[in-house]
Amino acid sequence: MTGNSSPQLWIYDTTLRDGTQREGLSVSIEDKLRIARRLDQLGIPFIEGGWPGANPKDVQFFWQLQEEPLQQAEVVAFCSTRRPHKIAASEPMLQAILAAGTHWVTIFGKSWDLHVTEGLKTTLAENLAMIRDTIEYLRAQGRRIIYDAEHWFDGYKHNPSYALQTLETAIAAGAEWLVLCDTNGGTLPHEIMQIVTDVIKTTSSDIQIGIHTHNDSDTAVANALAAVMAGANMVQGTMNGYGERCGNANLCSLIPNLQVKLGYKCIEDNQLLQLTETSRFVSEVVNLAPDEHAPFVGRSAFAHKGGIHVSAVERNPLTYEHIQPEQVGNRRRIVISEQSGVSNVLAKARCFGIQLDKHNPTTQRILERLKELESEGYQFEAAEASFELLMRQALGNRQQFFEIKGFQVHCDLVQEEETTSSLATVKVAVNGKDILEAAEGNGPVAALDAALRKALVNFYPQIASFELTDYKVRILNGHTGTSAKTRVMVESGNSHQRWTTVGVSTNILAASYQAVVEGLEYGLLLHSQAEAIVRASS
Amino acid sequence: MTGNSSPQLWIYDTTLRDGTQREGLSVSIEDKLRIARRLDQLGIPFIEGGWPGANPKDVQFFWQLQEEPLQQAEVVAFCSTRRPHKIAASEPMLQAILAAGTHWVTIFGKSWDLHVTEGLKTTLAENLAMIRDTIEYLRAQGRRIIYDAEHWFDGYKHNPSYALQTLETAIAAGAEWLVLCDTNGGTLPHEIMQIVTDVIKTTSSDIQIGIHTHNDSDTAVANALAAVMAGANMVQGTMNGYGERCGNANLCSLIPNLQVKLGYKCIEDNQLLQLTETSRFVSEVVNLAPDEHAPFVGRSAFAHKGGIHVSAVERNPLTYEHIQPEQVGNRRRIVISEQSGVSNVLAKARCFGIQLDKHNPTTQRILERLKELESEGYQFEAAEASFELLMRQALGNRQQFFEIKGFQVHCDLVQEEETTSSLATVKVAVNGKDILEAAEGNGPVAALDAALRKALVNFYPQIASFELTDYKVRILNGHTGTSAKTRVMVESGNSHQRWTTVGVSTNILAASYQAVVEGLEYGLLLHSQAEAIVRASS
Repeated sequence: MTGNSSPQLWIYDTTLRDGTQREGLSVSIEDKLRIARRLDQLGIPFIEGGWPGANPKDVQFFWQLQEEPLQQAEVVAFCSTRRPHKIAASEPMLQAILAAGTHWVTIFGKSWDLHVTEGLKTTLAENLAMIRDTIEYLRAQGRRIIYDAEHWFDGYKHNPSYALQTLETAIAAGAEWLVLCDTNGGTLPHEIMQIVTDVIKTTSSDIQIGIHTHNDSDTAVANALAAVMAGANMVQGTMNGYGERCGNANLCSLIPNLQVKLGYKCIEDNQLLQLTETSRFVSEVVNLAPDEHAPFVGRSAFAHKGGIHVSAVERNPLTYEHIQPEQVGNRRRIVISEQSGVSNVLAKARCFGIQLDKHNPTTQRILERLKELESEGYQFEAAEASFELLMRQALGNRQQFFEIKGFQVHCDLVQEEETTSSLATVKVAVNGKDILEAAEGNGPVAALDAALRKALVNFYPQIASFELTDYKVRILNGHTGTSAKTRVMVESGNSHQRWTTVGVSTNILAASYQAVVEGLEYGLLLHSQAEAIVRASS
Repeated sequence: MTGNSSPQLWIYDTTLRDGTQREGLSVSIEDKLRIARRLDQLGIPFIEGGWPGANPKDVQFFWQLQEEPLQQAEVVAFCSTRRPHKIAASEPMLQAILAAGTHWVTIFGKSWDLHVTEGLKTTLAENLAMIRDTIEYLRAQGRRIIYDAEHWFDGYKHNPSYALQTLETAIAAGAEWLVLCDTNGGTLPHEIMQIVTDVIKTTSSDIQIGIHTHNDSDTAVANALAAVMAGANMVQGTMNGYGERCGNANLCSLIPNLQVKLGYKCIEDNQLLQLTETSRFVSEVVNLAPDEHAPFVGRSAFAHKGGIHVSAVERNPLTYEHIQPEQVGNRRRIVISEQSGVSNVLAKARCFGIQLDKHNPTTQRILERLKELESEGYQFEAAEASFELLMRQALGNRQQFFEIKGFQVHCDLVQEEETTSSLATVKVAVNGKDILEAAEGNGPVAALDAALRKALVNFYPQIASFELTDYKVRILNGHTGTSAKTRVMVESGNSHQRWTTVGVSTNILAASYQAVVEGLEYGLLLHSQAEAIVRASS
């Protein structure tokens, strides 16, 4: 889509600084380093690492990057202007910035007169001196400066001439970029477009303009696009739109919009293929569930549910997809759900390599069973392994590796000794023979899982290579409190595949057990299929 | 904000039709009725109820509304144009539309030539006839028509003259509104602005224009705003942005943007005050967790975390908030977290009516305990009741209503009989006396809750009025599977208040127990505070 002639846009990622302001998000230094290296691979040219003067964790992050630098990206240290009536050279936080050892430093300063007088409690002139001194000091130490004009849009609306003075001061002191920040996120795209146009018209011609938006008006992405159309050539945002309150502009939406739709060059096209994976990697590292409905990179972004859509999209994807999912490393999904028509079940069967046709009465039977289970609270949209087992059951070709007879779980907590213990006993039958095994675990589900593996591993040694990679619990009809139904999703994996299974019960342990059992069963199925292929080809 | 002179915009809600296409969302007829009545209260003038010709659930929904109509809103039935080469009057789905008994009907038809020839497999002329016949037939039966031009923007880009012909056909047949749909969600705001302007210039002057956008480019809200600025006066969207793939334009963002920021009249200002509550009501009814980071209505939308922000926002909210949270029925929150400074802890203490000052060494101790617990996986951002208990503990004024000694849980599952049983025994001490009680439940947590209440109710009869209103489980570091730490949040309530507590453990039952125990303790605390007030005032 983009060639050598595409205009370059500079992406500036602030996931590791502004992104971590998101409520519920916290990261270790190791997490930050993993994310920085992954963003570097994605081709992000500027990665803001943190505020070393304000946070000891960030100091260490920059030191570690000095030991083992990024491949391509510039890592940027973030800091405010000096405090009122202090000497820049004596400010500890500016010493911390220098110690961070980056080529680039982002300095944020006040644009809005109200923030100067009410927030900093100083004079408008002193604020200009703070901007000037800070930038000049860092320039003298050989740093290149990005100036973040905090509250720019509100400040400009309130007192345009003072706001513009702050920018002129930053330019005169040696800043190379002016980043216009919509800190409170209240500005709408048409205002952004107008004000960025004004700034570009007013300021000297060789300064470069960046945009930093927040999503409080649900227009962060559109705001950044409006600024680019008005002439900005740096776009700040975060992975998955993480950030304080409603988040920052989402780079996972901005990059494909800018590159695929508007023809700008942000990263290489082959790096764009990694976007979905990188988005999920970041959400895993920060331990937040990925937003399944996220544009471009969400699991549902190219999911087709309604029966009409499914048949049409299979004929011609252009009819129902705004871009090719593969361009951003995502994929089309046919969704199985209550609303599914026969065509969805058939499409899904094809994915699993199962022969099924419209006129087969089994197809209708699968659909009915599906609706029945969904009304009980099951959901197969994510639990594709359980759905395949269900289809095989209906078709009469579900292989019975083992039979479940029952379980017992016993948990004990003694408050004074601060101890808990969990013991599980399971009973299964393999080839008609009953097996009883017991195991302990640091929780009841871990104990059940351990007992089950113990019971089966002698018959199926490959079970030793399966691992339980994720375990999710969702309370259905939460209103009824602890009596509510529980849906458990278990993700299992071996060295090269992952699969998800589901269990539902009012008893959380019974639901967990069911999902764990199907996870093992599906792993055995994959293993026996792989063996059959090996046998056939040898 | 809005007066009589504000231009009117017509909001058209399609939560009950397009919204239900969201993956993972399913609703009963009862759910749909509850949502429709609530949207009616909110002042939404058009509520699309469903497609009675395609879905038996929707047929019944419309019948129930005929029995007991909405107060103000027009409920709208949705349907496609007749099939190729059929007679409108003989189409069963149009009979179903008439039977729905609404004043208004939305008919969607194809705008994009590709969809006519490849999707419908008919001629371009026949598609025009389908639009004309369907609208004329329904007009003759006294229905008023909104014409939804499906795939409008893609169709117009591809073949503008044919696309415009479909609109002219709908106008000539008697449609009162033309709704331009960005069905695939790929269009960006500047294109929407341009194309809506073109349509308004081209079509006859007395037709009204609506806009229907999807969020695949992360610009659905901005797209709708762009259309309004170009002259559209109907905006379609869904509550919480529910919808297929990445969702529809979010009315919870659009209404405040249009009404508070752009000065249009959508609903009454006193109805706007219900927006946050309505958003949460809808998410509860459809049983999806509310998006905490949603603009305007999310729990985090006006949350302040960083230390600088908190002190500034307390001095002057305008400095860090784009609108007053109260305008949309939301509220400011001071967030407690790892990054919290002392000022957050102090602000939070004030909320709880606890006297604390900066120089009190306890303040520092609370902060340290907080960081320690958060590193173990606790989170107090949502569990404010547990945080208050923690503060009281540090201050030495946590009242000990009872003491926890331990519990035992036993669960049994017998596969053949399809039975599970859960038995819990708890040991607590009240006023130095040990109490042992046992209870059964339909799951282990329900059994624990029941046993605990049984043990305490003789001492604290008010416990009978507490209920457990929500129960949430989050697996921390999910990668370690069933051995992972579990965080449980429990929401409890009495007749007029709700509070949330948290528990963390590798044992899901221990984590649940801890949260349930603190939920009861906090309820007792509230009760004793209320009694103290009654005593003081009598």
